[in-house]
Amino acid sequence: MARIATVHRVPMRHPGDVSGVAALLDAGALDPADIVAILGKTEGNGCVNDFTRAYAVQALSVMLAGRLALTPEAVAARIAMVMSGGTEGGLSPHFLVFSVRTTDAAATGALAMGTAFTRDFAPEEIGRMPQLEATAAAVRAAMADAALTSPADVHYVQIKCPLLTSERIAAAEARGATVATHDTYASMGLSRGASALVVALALGEVPAGALSDAVIGQDTTLFSHRASASAGVELTRNEIVVLGNSASWAGDLTIAHAVMQDGIDLPAIHAALRGAGLDPGAGQLAPDHCARLVALLAKAEPSSSGRIRGNRHIMNDDSDINATRHARALVCGVAAAAVGRTDLFISGGAEHQGPDGGGPVAAIARKEA
Amino acid sequence: MARIATVHRVPMRHPGDVSGVAALLDAGALDPADIVAILGKTEGNGCVNDFTRAYAVQALSVMLAGRLALTPEAVAARIAMVMSGGTEGGLSPHFLVFSVRTTDAAATGALAMGTAFTRDFAPEEIGRMPQLEATAAAVRAAMADAALTSPADVHYVQIKCPLLTSERIAAAEARGATVATHDTYASMGLSRGASALVVALALGEVPAGALSDAVIGQDTTLFSHRASASAGVELTRNEIVVLGNSASWAGDLTIAHAVMQDGIDLPAIHAALRGAGLDPGAGQLAPDHCARLVALLAKAEPSSSGRIRGNRHIMNDDSDINATRHARALVCGVAAAAVGRTDLFISGGAEHQGPDGGGPVAAIARKEA
Amino acid sequence: MARIATVHRVPMRHPGDVSGVAALLDAGALDPADIVAILGKTEGNGCVNDFTRAYAVQALSVMLAGRLALTPEAVAARIAMVMSGGTEGGLSPHFLVFSVRTTDAAATGALAMGTAFTRDFAPEEIGRMPQLEATAAAVRAAMADAALTSPADVHYVQIKCPLLTSERIAAAEARGATVATHDTYASMGLSRGASALVVALALGEVPAGALSDAVIGQDTTLFSHRASASAGVELTRNEIVVLGNSASWAGDLTIAHAVMQDGIDLPAIHAALRGAGLDPGAGQLAPDHCARLVALLAKAEPSSSGRIRGNRHIMNDDSDINATRHARALVCGVAAAAVGRTDLFISGGAEHQGPDGGGPVAAIARKEA
Amino acid sequence: MARIATVHRVPMRHPGDVSGVAALLDAGALDPADIVAILGKTEGNGCVNDFTRAYAVQALSVMLAGRLALTPEAVAARIAMVMSGGTEGGLSPHFLVFSVRTTDAAATGALAMGTAFTRDFAPEEIGRMPQLEATAAAVRAAMADAALTSPADVHYVQIKCPLLTSERIAAAEARGATVATHDTYASMGLSRGASALVVALALGEVPAGALSDAVIGQDTTLFSHRASASAGVELTRNEIVVLGNSASWAGDLTIAHAVMQDGIDLPAIHAALRGAGLDPGAGQLAPDHCARLVALLAKAEPSSSGRIRGNRHIMNDDSDINATRHARALVCGVAAAAVGRTDLFISGGAEHQGPDGGGPVAAIARKEA
Repeated sequence: MARIATVHRVPMRHPGDVSGVAALLDAGALDPADIVAILGKTEGNGCVNDFTRAYAVQALSVMLAGRLALTPEAVAARIAMVMSGGTEGGLSPHFLVFSVRTTDAAATGALAMGTAFTRDFAPEEIGRMPQLEATAAAVRAAMADAALTSPADVHYVQIKCPLLTSERIAAAEARGATVATHDTYASMGLSRGASALVVALALGEVPAGALSDAVIGQDTTLFSHRASASAGVELTRNEIVVLGNSASWAGDLTIAHAVMQDGIDLPAIHAALRGAGLDPGAGQLAPDHCARLVALLAKAEPSSSGRIRGNRHIMNDDSDINATRHARALVCGVAAAAVGRTDLFISGGAEHQGPDGGGPVAAIARKEA
Repeated sequence: MARIATVHRVPMRHPGDVSGVAALLDAGALDPADIVAILGKTEGNGCVNDFTRAYAVQALSVMLAGRLALTPEAVAARIAMVMSGGTEGGLSPHFLVFSVRTTDAAATGALAMGTAFTRDFAPEEIGRMPQLEATAAAVRAAMADAALTSPADVHYVQIKCPLLTSERIAAAEARGATVATHDTYASMGLSRGASALVVALALGEVPAGALSDAVIGQDTTLFSHRASASAGVELTRNEIVVLGNSASWAGDLTIAHAVMQDGIDLPAIHAALRGAGLDPGAGQLAPDHCARLVALLAKAEPSSSGRIRGNRHIMNDDSDINATRHARALVCGVAAAAVGRTDLFISGGAEHQGPDGGGPVAAIARKEA
Repeated sequence: MARIATVHRVPMRHPGDVSGVAALLDAGALDPADIVAILGKTEGNGCVNDFTRAYAVQALSVMLAGRLALTPEAVAARIAMVMSGGTEGGLSPHFLVFSVRTTDAAATGALAMGTAFTRDFAPEEIGRMPQLEATAAAVRAAMADAALTSPADVHYVQIKCPLLTSERIAAAEARGATVATHDTYASMGLSRGASALVVALALGEVPAGALSDAVIGQDTTLFSHRASASAGVELTRNEIVVLGNSASWAGDLTIAHAVMQDGIDLPAIHAALRGAGLDPGAGQLAPDHCARLVALLAKAEPSSSGRIRGNRHIMNDDSDINATRHARALVCGVAAAAVGRTDLFISGGAEHQGPDGGGPVAAIARKEA
Repeated sequence: MARIATVHRVPMRHPGDVSGVAALLDAGALDPADIVAILGKTEGNGCVNDFTRAYAVQALSVMLAGRLALTPEAVAARIAMVMSGGTEGGLSPHFLVFSVRTTDAAATGALAMGTAFTRDFAPEEIGRMPQLEATAAAVRAAMADAALTSPADVHYVQIKCPLLTSERIAAAEARGATVATHDTYASMGLSRGASALVVALALGEVPAGALSDAVIGQDTTLFSHRASASAGVELTRNEIVVLGNSASWAGDLTIAHAVMQDGIDLPAIHAALRGAGLDPGAGQLAPDHCARLVALLAKAEPSSSGRIRGNRHIMNDDSDINATRHARALVCGVAAAAVGRTDLFISGGAEHQGPDGGGPVAAIARKEA
């Protein structure tokens, strides 16, 4: 007897469209009680006022509440729902439904997953050490949940984290507290950065002594190779999903990762694909290998230098389109070039997630039959 | 004695920054009298109110006027200046300066270029047969200028064309004329489409009898494999630059083209690179081949189906970011994945330029020493 | 015994925040069974991909379902929920909850309201006569519901109407049907225009013979003085709310309207305020009169001439910010100047709603004690 | 013999359209040698990558160079050209050409103006005390130029100031210098704030001891009632234009100012109009008074509290449209309500220019004949 992890990739017609997930449940292809996490790429701006994330979470919660005989709030408390806004440049809105069940099959080594949640954070904790410290225990709990004992077996840690709004800042300051930043957009980066650094710490990628409020969002030499954090207005706690390969799990899925050194690092994406048993051949997966790709997860961000391999980009100086929107679009193109499809989980804002201007990339694939 | 064509790729720090071109003239690397065309990727929105194109043209005209002892207007009348707005997703703003000089060297077969201009168009002619018909003669003139007698030797035809503004529409209607559309953004597509169809006609890609006002912007099965059209508010005529390979030219440059079938057609870009003697190897040009790439020119557009290989994209329904901006960003990523650099001339709006959702791509490269 | 209409203005902290409405129900200030319509200004872009409208409708439906022992779908079928996206320029997101109850008090003449719904429309009907004709019966039904027998007593007719998306267009064309436009943004205007013309017809503002597919969105001389239509992706039918003054209703509310001739027509707003018993004095309502203003409802649109009183505006040529967003912001400023507050229901896209560039404005106020 | 100041308000068809100014010169209505300053509202985004400002400056410089027998650079060095980007919500792009000539007429008391310029600033000086201190001398010089000896006679001080770009930041850091912020958009606010505080200091509105790097952009209780600062990428120095009334000047123009306490402070605008001899009557200037209004200059900004008179606005949390764009649109509506026209010089970003969320407003009018 072993656990088996499955991933369903489900298109959505709009952020409130959960009919695809419902259809899987109706068809018996998926037991709602097995769902542990749902990642989603929704078609908002991915920034402060992106309400497509909360809309999707509400739609999922209401639909699953009916199936699980729970309140919508209890559904949201139980299942990690990590919506990442922004489908620029060709990205296709979709859900990734992660589920776990036990099987009589023997453990053969396969994709393993675990989830955990922190307490709610006060506005003044966001983007600072208290958020980071409270998250450390949750990352360890999620690894334990997945039976991933060695950091080397962990290939992706997805975190959903909160941000500051004008209202939250005002509430904190009314209590005499100070917040990390008054710029609500900047708070997303600090929250993502603090969340990523705790992953780096948990996986032994940075030493504990290196972390402090002062380095969060500042010292770009400190980063995780496997963290992916998305900030959203719709929650006030951190939610963690750990993905890795474990000998004690069954099933035909496997995961691998690599780190893009910059936004056009096609070879890094190829390395992640190859690690998961897929062959990009002359550059783009052939249809049979493309069909075996279950999910591609990557982070994107503009380089702070304003350059990519020496050539200027305009992302950081564009006041019409936010920099992370440009970055997601760019990495969508590079990743779609590699895999030949556009329903990819590319998330913006890679502070402390890979080197400056780059980011982690992970591939989950079905093993060759 | 033969003609030799050269292409200088020059970064710009902002749309009015012509210091890089001036430095080439100061250094004697380029004779201003030899310049026949300047293409530019400028960092505006690439849509109706993108004034970075006209700003760059004015800056170039004023600077070159001093070097050529001409008025700025005479410079603009003599040199085809095709600014394409929009550097989404990582594209790097730059100029491509095309020049032609005679040489004592023997003709060995090399890149050939020619330019021509139409008369100014009335608003009611834009996006309709009169624009198309007047442009036909100019395309033939540009081919003759380049000594490209066979359509098979033509690999890229760049056209800069006008658009409708509220003011131009009002002026036409005050005279009792009707315009092709009241939607100024839509007028860009009609103007580009009419311009591309005339290239298709000139190169024998569509039969003359197939063209009429009714098919412009409507019949996506009619298209050129080698046309690239950019619309801009800063001119009222069409300007044509024809590029090809000719046995009667000298120099070490060569050009090749292919057609992307959709926005993520990495193999098509590879084909164009290989045609120009560059080897993408496992996917991305190695540094030595990347250095030999002088220019990559491509068109980008959202598929009208709303899908890429079956997966939904949101470009056409996004009221915050125009669809062509998404499309340029996507193709930037795919092309940068192939070549390993971001100073690429990717232009949005590929009406009748390649199949629906795809577009032509051309590579100009230095032959191996 | 008479009917009494009440209007609660409730701020929202985000599009899914229905806590303010819930608090009214919890406090017994409002019986959920009395609610007939909820208007909302939500903070999306007000254009095609504005999902804040549907998010708010979902949040309201789920919350009210619990209070009414109905499914969310049944709530949405029973209560007209007209979300208008776009809070540009200072507009404050809020709900207007309209309820009706019977009272033992005598009818003294007061605000009257009625609602009605059409069947769902096929994509090919939107923006054309079938949508218009099906809506005519619904407007008459809503007037009857409100016991408003004379068109002269009607002061505002709010309609929520559907739009075309890429997917809906594709579905229609797969069946061989043709749609009014392929431009999803333009479809909003056609849908609003058709909806407004039917109000004009019902109120005797235009003759029946004047209407046809050809005039919808084209003949700006045909318009209603009292229609306000908002298009949204979240519904496929028309929902109608009629507001007027009736001798057979009780309560202390009254409504009046005027027509803004252009976007800066402060005197028209003053006229509506005065009609509802409020005195703008030297320009802006004093605090006591401001407190008696229960709702200000107005339409905004850019003039198609590109000018306001002879001076050029750039709304129609702006490819970064949609024209209706500019127009809402402008009218917000003019209306807030008049009333001294920003929680105003100003809705964009006034096709056939008032003259070109202008629009209806209505004020609902509490009578002086 | 006295000096006389004139102001020409000239519409522009696009940011490079200086034909209206040229026509005034051609007609002899204006001597190019008399021009001391040109303010312009251009139709860019008013933020970091707004190149319409520099485009207009280039177009003006090139055109005036021909008239003044100077180089374009010499024109820009001599005439203060303050382009303010952003014509949201109905604002009409236009130039305000300020000129000074001597006259045989007696001084009757009238509008007086003076200009001055600082040295160029290093990136690390921007938004900090060095920028502020260098500007103090320039403000005094401009007042002396205008013969405005008493601060009480000064009614508006327009400053154009530089901002940080990614490139400028990188250049400073390459030299080991630190900059005030890495956020290029935020640098605009710091630069405007430092510029405004020096005006407050020069006019005795804040004490010298109150100023330090720490208060710039932070302490909103420190502000000028008469400063208006616009930041732009196209310059690296501060340019100052002082406007006031002086007994030693001749002519029929007069200026007055007031301070808007928030974005919807119609009474403050009325006060400025009345101060300049115009009567807003029931709210909006009648046509004859409107015609006597030569210029309305105002600042706009979102309140940092996220509220206007208690109601939430969304400006600070909007990642699609920058907050200053919303604020300009709002104040455009309020000001246009008051004056009945839209060619108003409303500039965004009022840091230390009026109270938080408000800003100065000045009216220049022709005295009644």
